[in-house]
Amino acid sequence: MASMEKIVSLCKRRGFMFQSSEIYGGFGGFWDYGPLGVELKRNVKEAWWQDMVSSHNELLQPVGAPSGYEMVGLDSTIIMHPQVWKCSGHYDLFHDYMVDCRETKKRYRHDQVRGRWVECKDQKVFVTSNAEIEQEDAEIQRRALKFFRLRGKDADQLKYDGGFATLDTIDDMDRVLGPDAKQIGTLTEPREFNLMFKTTVGALGGDDDVAFLRPETAQGIFVNFKNVLDSTRVRVPFGIAQVGKSFRNEITPRNFTFRSREFEQMEIEFFCPPNQSQEWYRYWRDRRVAWYTELGLSGDSIRMREHHTEELAHYSTGTADIEYAFPFLDEGEFGELEGVAHRGDFDLRSHMEGKLDPSTNPLELETDERGKPKYRGSGRDLSYRDDLTNEKFVPHVVEPSAGADRATLAFLCEAYREDEAPDEKGKMQTRTLLKFHPRLAPLKAAVFPLVKKDGMPEVAKEIYGELKQHLPVFYDEKGAVGRRYRRQDEVGTPYCITVDGQTLQDQTVTVRDRDTLEQWRVSTKDICDEIRQRIRSS
Amino acid sequence: MASMEKIVSLCKRRGFMFQSSEIYGGFGGFWDYGPLGVELKRNVKEAWWQDMVSSHNELLQPVGAPSGYEMVGLDSTIIMHPQVWKCSGHYDLFHDYMVDCRETKKRYRHDQVRGRWVECKDQKVFVTSNAEIEQEDAEIQRRALKFFRLRGKDADQLKYDGGFATLDTIDDMDRVLGPDAKQIGTLTEPREFNLMFKTTVGALGGDDDVAFLRPETAQGIFVNFKNVLDSTRVRVPFGIAQVGKSFRNEITPRNFTFRSREFEQMEIEFFCPPNQSQEWYRYWRDRRVAWYTELGLSGDSIRMREHHTEELAHYSTGTADIEYAFPFLDEGEFGELEGVAHRGDFDLRSHMEGKLDPSTNPLELETDERGKPKYRGSGRDLSYRDDLTNEKFVPHVVEPSAGADRATLAFLCEAYREDEAPDEKGKMQTRTLLKFHPRLAPLKAAVFPLVKKDGMPEVAKEIYGELKQHLPVFYDEKGAVGRRYRRQDEVGTPYCITVDGQTLQDQTVTVRDRDTLEQWRVSTKDICDEIRQRIRSS
Repeated sequence: MASMEKIVSLCKRRGFMFQSSEIYGGFGGFWDYGPLGVELKRNVKEAWWQDMVSSHNELLQPVGAPSGYEMVGLDSTIIMHPQVWKCSGHYDLFHDYMVDCRETKKRYRHDQVRGRWVECKDQKVFVTSNAEIEQEDAEIQRRALKFFRLRGKDADQLKYDGGFATLDTIDDMDRVLGPDAKQIGTLTEPREFNLMFKTTVGALGGDDDVAFLRPETAQGIFVNFKNVLDSTRVRVPFGIAQVGKSFRNEITPRNFTFRSREFEQMEIEFFCPPNQSQEWYRYWRDRRVAWYTELGLSGDSIRMREHHTEELAHYSTGTADIEYAFPFLDEGEFGELEGVAHRGDFDLRSHMEGKLDPSTNPLELETDERGKPKYRGSGRDLSYRDDLTNEKFVPHVVEPSAGADRATLAFLCEAYREDEAPDEKGKMQTRTLLKFHPRLAPLKAAVFPLVKKDGMPEVAKEIYGELKQHLPVFYDEKGAVGRRYRRQDEVGTPYCITVDGQTLQDQTVTVRDRDTLEQWRVSTKDICDEIRQRIRSS
Repeated sequence: MASMEKIVSLCKRRGFMFQSSEIYGGFGGFWDYGPLGVELKRNVKEAWWQDMVSSHNELLQPVGAPSGYEMVGLDSTIIMHPQVWKCSGHYDLFHDYMVDCRETKKRYRHDQVRGRWVECKDQKVFVTSNAEIEQEDAEIQRRALKFFRLRGKDADQLKYDGGFATLDTIDDMDRVLGPDAKQIGTLTEPREFNLMFKTTVGALGGDDDVAFLRPETAQGIFVNFKNVLDSTRVRVPFGIAQVGKSFRNEITPRNFTFRSREFEQMEIEFFCPPNQSQEWYRYWRDRRVAWYTELGLSGDSIRMREHHTEELAHYSTGTADIEYAFPFLDEGEFGELEGVAHRGDFDLRSHMEGKLDPSTNPLELETDERGKPKYRGSGRDLSYRDDLTNEKFVPHVVEPSAGADRATLAFLCEAYREDEAPDEKGKMQTRTLLKFHPRLAPLKAAVFPLVKKDGMPEVAKEIYGELKQHLPVFYDEKGAVGRRYRRQDEVGTPYCITVDGQTLQDQTVTVRDRDTLEQWRVSTKDICDEIRQRIRSS
């Protein structure tokens, strides 16, 4: 697979992604989509909505599903009533542990500070480092030498006790040399840091006006469960789908758009009878993996990882991560694309049970004797009555939760190829191409006149104008046609149409396939149908 | 036009819009889109993107335009570097004036507090009221009577001096009776209140980490101007289009989704040579009005209002509001749908001139002697060099800035009709319908078996399944067919297809038109083409 550097460089050069606020030096954890990137991401989101919602036929029973089911969409706000996050548990539990350095005033994620015990001059110190894993060894030695006031040639005086370990193995923080500190014992005990972005709504700006940017779109679905039931005729089992931005104040955003602070999710909450929930869990897990492979991720680069029992949330009887072998990961490592979770009735119950006294600040709810917040929901009945069986129950939920930016990045990485292809003079040249599935390609076709004379541009412009009414296409008449092909390969345009000398004689044009480099002639009057037909059937 | 109450009620009942966090008592200024609403709004945004970006042909010169032009898309983040808002002027100037009440601790928008001078018992007091305009008179009298300790029958002792006025006519705030106060002189002098939602990015949470939710998508375009130039081959004149959420901490959100705190914009920044900017301004103004009318807003309910010279920002040589006669407004009043502004080179210059010392907190820039902030931009050259003429200039900008939620609401209000139509027994009945343009209708067709027997459901389901692959359609077999028609009329479905006894004999189905109620028969095998053809040509 290609290196991440090449992909990031192509993304910037051809306008897929830019660092946010780049002219002001950038803003960590935020990424903008350029002219081609916005089309690519739109296509990813549109394919998801189309396949999951618009084209889904509830009258058919899909392979592997216990029955047919309905799907509807929703679009809830990013800022919601703060009690939503109290009841969901995010206010109390959605945090990372941080340590501060008293000396440098820097802050670190507790689980990301790694180091080794080093003994020297009768002193034993846990020396930590911020370096990349491959440079950790050298960095620990460099820092230990400095701390013990030794020169490089005295490195053999350092005695290592055990291998690399994280801070949670340390009982005595006074023995720790922080990643940027000169003295030992400057790191604080770990403290909770909530990952929700906080803001204030309304003019008063007091504690009662605190609100949060949603860290997931899912809760907007749960709190609208009753609205959807009451305003449509959906019957359980059914799913509610939503696409939208979410925000997490990540301490260490990294890996391009993979872990960013502002990102877009594509989430489904699927409501089913409790006794069918395991079957539905398996259905969604497999259906979602199939969706990625249908759109081009290869079997080798994608995998499904079932969580072990001890990894599961207490309410979950099954969770699977759909993972992709992103090129920024080490060989054999995978990063999460989507989580499919069996959530039981935890969410609907959290939002229904108990009712808050309206004079209480919703964020200051009581906790129980173990310090766990007592979730106090809306007091609204969120159970479902089946009008055929007359059974009443709180539906169980299966949640396929995908990241639109991660999916976009995976499709980009998978599509990136370098091969050898003959240029216009027949000479073999390295060629960069993005082998996008035609549904995802930002441009579906490009139209070229071979040369800028003999009426070729006029014919090409006419074809372009007709195609453009239906599909995103590009017109290019600048430079050698071979270079124009290369420019389109590099952004993943599946078909290039060339108007040449023969066109003027027999009214046919050349169509060139991005992947096979095959060329064939099509009548000018059929070219639109030909391209649309090929896109549709791909 | 229909009353707002009926529209709001239909929206909730049929799942177009819900109040955000409704199960927690709602959250003022935030609205969710339900299953039909999300499709309607998606169609509005998609029509805009299609008409402005995807299908735009840069090789043609549109009627009224000085030349052809290119259009590209962009998707920038909601949270950007805070210096963006310093340089754009939003940090210092994007505010409303507020007054606080010392007695009740309530806060009001300065320009929304209205009252009248009342004289009684040798005292003259400016009595204000929070009431709707129609009840203001009665409310002022009630409050004045109470203040002067009089009974209703003594109302003739109150002498009014002048008509209604706002607080900015008042020199002496000590004579003002606040809208909810019992005593006079409890309102403070007006103070600035910035409308940007503030948050903190990163783990430290200090003053240097303050960031804002964007109050407009436009700035994300300006700061990416150079990225777009460098990564594409666009040449001036060209436009960059963006659809996305923006946030304004409105003091008094109101009128359903018209003035909300979280909303979605559809903005174009159009870059052109300075000497062509007036022509482009006129082109965009007219083009955008035409867009709304092509999609169904009638000439009577939409108008274009050119700002007077004194209303214009100092850098603008022309701004026009495209306005709609929303039903919540008084007769003859209009509300803004979209603003088309000639912004000169103000924005690009703001982001280019001067460079900030990186050690400075970007929000604490100097102000000049008049207290105006000295904008200090990125120091990056945002001018454009025309490679044909070799001219170098900072392009002028025309900005058509539309609200996606306002457009959606306008299309809903315009579509809402009540008429008389015969029910299935031929009896005239009031009928509610949403007369959406077919491109905007959430459902394009519905398929019914006349009765649930004789193989009709099977044929209907087959037609439904075929249509569903291409278009959002609905299947319904419950209840009398007349009621099913009504349910579809109420959500604006343009075509209903019924499989009946004759279908089984001659393989034709009935198609019914939502607006004309005309019915005609189409062969089963042609029905998909028929519907798709009608949608396309509408």
